[in-house]
Amino acid sequence: MQDQASTLVELLHSDTSYPAGSRVLEAGCGVGAQTVTLAGNSPHAEFTSIDISDTSLAEAGRKITACGLTNVHFRQADIFNLPFGPGAFDHVFICFVLEHLNKPLDALHALKDVLRPGGTITVIEGDHGSAYFYPDSYSAHRAIQCQVELQRQAGGNAMIGRGLYPLLCDTGFKSVRVSPRMVYADSSRPELVDGFTRKTFTAMIEGVRESALKTGMIDQDVFDRGVEDLYRTTEKDGVFCYTFFKAFGEKR
Amino acid sequence: MQDQASTLVELLHSDTSYPAGSRVLEAGCGVGAQTVTLAGNSPHAEFTSIDISDTSLAEAGRKITACGLTNVHFRQADIFNLPFGPGAFDHVFICFVLEHLNKPLDALHALKDVLRPGGTITVIEGDHGSAYFYPDSYSAHRAIQCQVELQRQAGGNAMIGRGLYPLLCDTGFKSVRVSPRMVYADSSRPELVDGFTRKTFTAMIEGVRESALKTGMIDQDVFDRGVEDLYRTTEKDGVFCYTFFKAFGEKR
Repeated sequence: MQDQASTLVELLHSDTSYPAGSRVLEAGCGVGAQTVTLAGNSPHAEFTSIDISDTSLAEAGRKITACGLTNVHFRQADIFNLPFGPGAFDHVFICFVLEHLNKPLDALHALKDVLRPGGTITVIEGDHGSAYFYPDSYSAHRAIQCQVELQRQAGGNAMIGRGLYPLLCDTGFKSVRVSPRMVYADSSRPELVDGFTRKTFTAMIEGVRESALKTGMIDQDVFDRGVEDLYRTTEKDGVFCYTFFKAFGEKR
Repeated sequence: MQDQASTLVELLHSDTSYPAGSRVLEAGCGVGAQTVTLAGNSPHAEFTSIDISDTSLAEAGRKITACGLTNVHFRQADIFNLPFGPGAFDHVFICFVLEHLNKPLDALHALKDVLRPGGTITVIEGDHGSAYFYPDSYSAHRAIQCQVELQRQAGGNAMIGRGLYPLLCDTGFKSVRVSPRMVYADSSRPELVDGFTRKTFTAMIEGVRESALKTGMIDQDVFDRGVEDLYRTTEKDGVFCYTFFKAFGEKR
């Protein structure tokens, strides 16, 4: 798991570091899963990490303290109603948050408001429509589609990754650049097969089983076959592909 | 187009070069689209480029001569009945060929036979199931699926890219490593939008229109809408993703 975690962290975060003294807003830090890496990679930048949940913030705080990091200030706040003045930050970082929001464009506008002119935004999101695999499986795609549909019903967008470029452009960010970060897992990379294909992606799909069956959007046997087929891709001859998208924009 | 061609060539070929004096078999060179780059990147290696079609070989020969390259020997030959002895080559290179073969595993066995122990094989293939885009479109996926199905009916596999790892392992190659090469095209990369999304991928799908409609596998209006939606991804806010797979194995 540590190897897998390192590989993904490297893939998503290695090219993000902020200059000494810069003021960085991490929007929607949750339990601090990204905060540790983010703050660790920029030890002389000052982070303000916000989340709507006090419980998550407490957990994130414990994590940061345990890592011995002292450059993160946590604060309870709502992205849509930020308690910061215009231009309060040099940079904004937001990861795995927009996918859950009903109005991601409004969130980006709010974040842009607290950025100083010349400041930057970095956004990371996944895209569940980017998952494909060997052996291919109709049932597996159907099971994944349940997760996408449930997230849509909850107001989110599980396929937001491919749409980051237009989102940032529509918000008015300039010099927008998106770079895809593809996870490719076959049995020559056992730590990714176990850590990502099995314990991250397939476990997540398996986790929506009850909700999916309750809505009647899929037959039980198709869903279960789909999950089985996802596990099948973790066998010796299996292959699993998934892509994260990292977007970058400047406020002018 | 030159920019686009350069970007794709870089993406697919930049990490392949062979030592001086090594004997390289290019299997299925066609009209020499890859041969020029391959031989140019390894000016002191000796290439034998084969194809089943004399017409294609003649065209490939003209291309190589026009580039001033002198390290390629062309020969008409069938991959399944190679006119070379065991161990005749140090390396094998094969690109965009396996997808068209009914028995790719047999082809790989034949190629392995003419490799010396310690020799390597490099395989590049696309995967039409790896295409996704913004805005998403059911019709576009249906139109792409027609190309996949027609290629299947012709004995090929348009989704072979994701399957290269098990194919090379099954042939008995060792130290098999696959690296995906993802093409990501949005309007910040206009040369890729024009050269790849529009003139390569969408043009190819558009090219199977008559065959697809003739089989009755799709309604005309769905197909036409699908192609229109693929062109839609080339507009200012559009995004198109596609992945090539490059596989490498050793004979022990």
